[in-house]
Amino acid sequence: MNAHHLIDLNDISVEQWDALIRLAADIRLNPRDYMGRCRGRIMATLFYEPSTRTQMSFQAAMLRLGGEIIGFDNPGNSSVSKGESLKDTVRIVSGYSDLIVMRHPQEGAAKAASMYSLCPVINAGDGGHLHPTQTLTDLVTLSNEKGSLSGLKIGVCGDIKYGRTVHSLIKAMCKFSGNVFYLISTPELGVPGYIKEVMSSSGCGCLEVNSLEECIGELDVLYMTRIQRERFATPEEYERNRGVYILDRKKLSKAKADLSIMHPLPRVDEIEDAIDDDRRAVYYRQAVFGMYARMALILRMLEEDVITAKGFGKPIDGAVCTNPRCITHTEHYLPGCFSQEGGASSCCYCDTRLA
Amino acid sequence: MNAHHLIDLNDISVEQWDALIRLAADIRLNPRDYMGRCRGRIMATLFYEPSTRTQMSFQAAMLRLGGEIIGFDNPGNSSVSKGESLKDTVRIVSGYSDLIVMRHPQEGAAKAASMYSLCPVINAGDGGHLHPTQTLTDLVTLSNEKGSLSGLKIGVCGDIKYGRTVHSLIKAMCKFSGNVFYLISTPELGVPGYIKEVMSSSGCGCLEVNSLEECIGELDVLYMTRIQRERFATPEEYERNRGVYILDRKKLSKAKADLSIMHPLPRVDEIEDAIDDDRRAVYYRQAVFGMYARMALILRMLEEDVITAKGFGKPIDGAVCTNPRCITHTEHYLPGCFSQEGGASSCCYCDTRLA
Amino acid sequence: MNAHHLIDLNDISVEQWDALIRLAADIRLNPRDYMGRCRGRIMATLFYEPSTRTQMSFQAAMLRLGGEIIGFDNPGNSSVSKGESLKDTVRIVSGYSDLIVMRHPQEGAAKAASMYSLCPVINAGDGGHLHPTQTLTDLVTLSNEKGSLSGLKIGVCGDIKYGRTVHSLIKAMCKFSGNVFYLISTPELGVPGYIKEVMSSSGCGCLEVNSLEECIGELDVLYMTRIQRERFATPEEYERNRGVYILDRKKLSKAKADLSIMHPLPRVDEIEDAIDDDRRAVYYRQAVFGMYARMALILRMLEEDVITAKGFGKPIDGAVCTNPRCITHTEHYLPGCFSQEGGASSCCYCDTRLA
Repeated sequence: MNAHHLIDLNDISVEQWDALIRLAADIRLNPRDYMGRCRGRIMATLFYEPSTRTQMSFQAAMLRLGGEIIGFDNPGNSSVSKGESLKDTVRIVSGYSDLIVMRHPQEGAAKAASMYSLCPVINAGDGGHLHPTQTLTDLVTLSNEKGSLSGLKIGVCGDIKYGRTVHSLIKAMCKFSGNVFYLISTPELGVPGYIKEVMSSSGCGCLEVNSLEECIGELDVLYMTRIQRERFATPEEYERNRGVYILDRKKLSKAKADLSIMHPLPRVDEIEDAIDDDRRAVYYRQAVFGMYARMALILRMLEEDVITAKGFGKPIDGAVCTNPRCITHTEHYLPGCFSQEGGASSCCYCDTRLA
Repeated sequence: MNAHHLIDLNDISVEQWDALIRLAADIRLNPRDYMGRCRGRIMATLFYEPSTRTQMSFQAAMLRLGGEIIGFDNPGNSSVSKGESLKDTVRIVSGYSDLIVMRHPQEGAAKAASMYSLCPVINAGDGGHLHPTQTLTDLVTLSNEKGSLSGLKIGVCGDIKYGRTVHSLIKAMCKFSGNVFYLISTPELGVPGYIKEVMSSSGCGCLEVNSLEECIGELDVLYMTRIQRERFATPEEYERNRGVYILDRKKLSKAKADLSIMHPLPRVDEIEDAIDDDRRAVYYRQAVFGMYARMALILRMLEEDVITAKGFGKPIDGAVCTNPRCITHTEHYLPGCFSQEGGASSCCYCDTRLA
Repeated sequence: MNAHHLIDLNDISVEQWDALIRLAADIRLNPRDYMGRCRGRIMATLFYEPSTRTQMSFQAAMLRLGGEIIGFDNPGNSSVSKGESLKDTVRIVSGYSDLIVMRHPQEGAAKAASMYSLCPVINAGDGGHLHPTQTLTDLVTLSNEKGSLSGLKIGVCGDIKYGRTVHSLIKAMCKFSGNVFYLISTPELGVPGYIKEVMSSSGCGCLEVNSLEECIGELDVLYMTRIQRERFATPEEYERNRGVYILDRKKLSKAKADLSIMHPLPRVDEIEDAIDDDRRAVYYRQAVFGMYARMALILRMLEEDVITAKGFGKPIDGAVCTNPRCITHTEHYLPGCFSQEGGASSCCYCDTRLA
């Protein structure tokens, strides 16, 4: 059983992040040097829910390295998702391929897959839990656009209570010194307590702000996310609030000339179309940086085997994970695995703490 | 923004058609010379509606040139078609790939895509509007089967009122001298007036004929199309008419020995199965010529950049396109663009004239 | 018309099986020697019903040989399956590709395809009729795991009345000497009479056994299959019977140390998860052997053209196939073809005997 997987970006060190970021930059500058590096290798994209963009980004990455692709993206239509355990599918497909990229609606699914795979597994999103290559994409983008990952004033705007992308980005940027976060949201949609703890214990600064307008002039980076209508108690409240968190030309006129506007995409209307051609709009380039980030990751996992996984923890007598979205609740053969950190135990699949 | 797209075959000159036809013929004769010519290049097939055959033809073409493929063909299942604008999808995918092939149910969609793409766009069908690679396929087939694109007696049979394929073919063949068209249809399903204008202003001859039998003996080419049951007022009328426009062995017995029977496929029953093995049946070879035509086009667009696009026109104050199937009615950020020709203005996306 | 297809494994000689088995073993040991052998060749996977695992196995096989892939796997979504005859689809796709792999829900479909294809056709399953690459997979697995295909005590367990896989395996293993079959099932789900005839006329031994426990200690091979709930008259009867045919640790404790447990997969619960890590569990390796078996087959069909097809038989006046699942009942242009063997005539598509 190969133990070199990428399930959670925090499983690998900041030095390894740096190496991936440098490698992505080099591939971008010298793509021809990397063209045949994965010749003869096969990547399987097992997408248990559709995510066309993520899948195309991984596919383009592998093809640009000279590798090949098998996989599925249509779970309803796929026989592997009918009555076959995740374990059996992963064991068999890992015998056909050299690398598995998995997207799954349940939390902890990628971790579970890594326990049975004969080849490395990359987590391409497991429900609302983790999406490490999105975070890696953001780091590669910031590093290339700003020249450094330290000393940045970073606004995060919109629904920052439920947004997995924003939480992962904050946690990652807290590993670098001197960053200050501007949390731009309504009181109801602010970041959860544990993210605030991460910021304060890391020594990074943090300001809560009620509108884009009052802080946009100070920012080096503005990370936009969508506020979903359903998050508000009433339609009236939604209408009253939404404009405050939409980026338009008027608000942008107050921003610095070197602001970098990011967005994980897809967007709906939280960034006005007219801004797309402003050179501060980084979100389209961000998607391309994502392809280079994935090329770096694939190459490193196939060639150098330096990615290492967090351990699998141990079962605790009588304990089951309390997260109803955890993969352990549908794949019943999975052993209960809990890791101990401080005084608390948390599920090794979905990271939910035992009460 | 790269301006080298193929949206409408009429955007390029007859000399460029000739060059593509010659290139397709050379690839067919010497396929090994072209095997690695697109090595390292990626083509994205963005099929917003399924068209398996067209997609497989493009894919086989790119793979035979040594290139690779990403894309989607399942809009209902695809996240890119959920809530994301055509603009964003095209901007991002064009960052992953070297060439986009787009099929879309709305008219003008390929033109709209070309306004935002970072790489060349090929229109693989935009609703009932244009399908230039089908027309190029027909030209390559005619050139190879008949040895010339001039001086041909060409029957077009069936529903020639609504058939996009037939209209494009007639317009294309009118650019060559001495062709005569036999329009074989019911009075209700004859060609529209503007197609008649094209024929008369080009100096090509044109005869309206009520049945296959009365003209088949004179034809060099017979282009068959399907008559759909729904086109007739009553089922009785359909039954009375359909046999007249079905090609069977009896009618074929009156044809010349070197007649070329073409069909864009798929067919239902408008050509009898028993004719498939007659050497005058060209329709299967036509599909293979389509693959070579697409190889020539892909190669030229990736290697030589000689394909040039029609301009994007200008907005007219207060004017909106009157075609309800035009892409401008669902993608609201698209600027109104109208080109002036003679006294009339027409929409740059779907070519509908302003009233 | 190329006549080199693989529709039924019995169309080729035991010597040809041996050659394929040896080639698969060599590819497995020396994969790098075969990496570019199908460079520039295209395989079309035409899957008229989804079978993700079989399709991925074929795709991985072709890609590991350096070839490329086109195809479809989503019949509901595919335009080729709407109103176009199998004949037209196959004729056209065989003009794009060098090899067709076809999966179809109707019996005899692959045979029908081979009548019109310009390139070799591999049957990847035609309804409940044949699935020759599964049988080839089983032969490659047995040869590698047991070192010989003769003198084996082979248990086949579960629903062996309806299981196509098991019938084909028994027929194949009866061509080798000294094999003995243990038919482990309920009286209702035993093998059909014609399979018993094959065993007795081949001289292979055959024992009917009511439970796994009473024979597992004697077996060299145990081939497990699933018993579907629907096969029993009542739910009570199902519950009473199912445990008898489930392989668990307790029953396995009586087995020999070199037993090979096989399963065509997917499994549901007929083999206990705890057995997966026992080295007698061969079913995961069996899937990988399937990839090598398909690599050998593809290579041989593309490079050496030694696969030969059974003849197409002749029409019999007034005779039509009596099997309602036969492809001749939906594709009406297909000529009736019957072959004569002994005194009986059987349909060349689905092998059903005329009454």
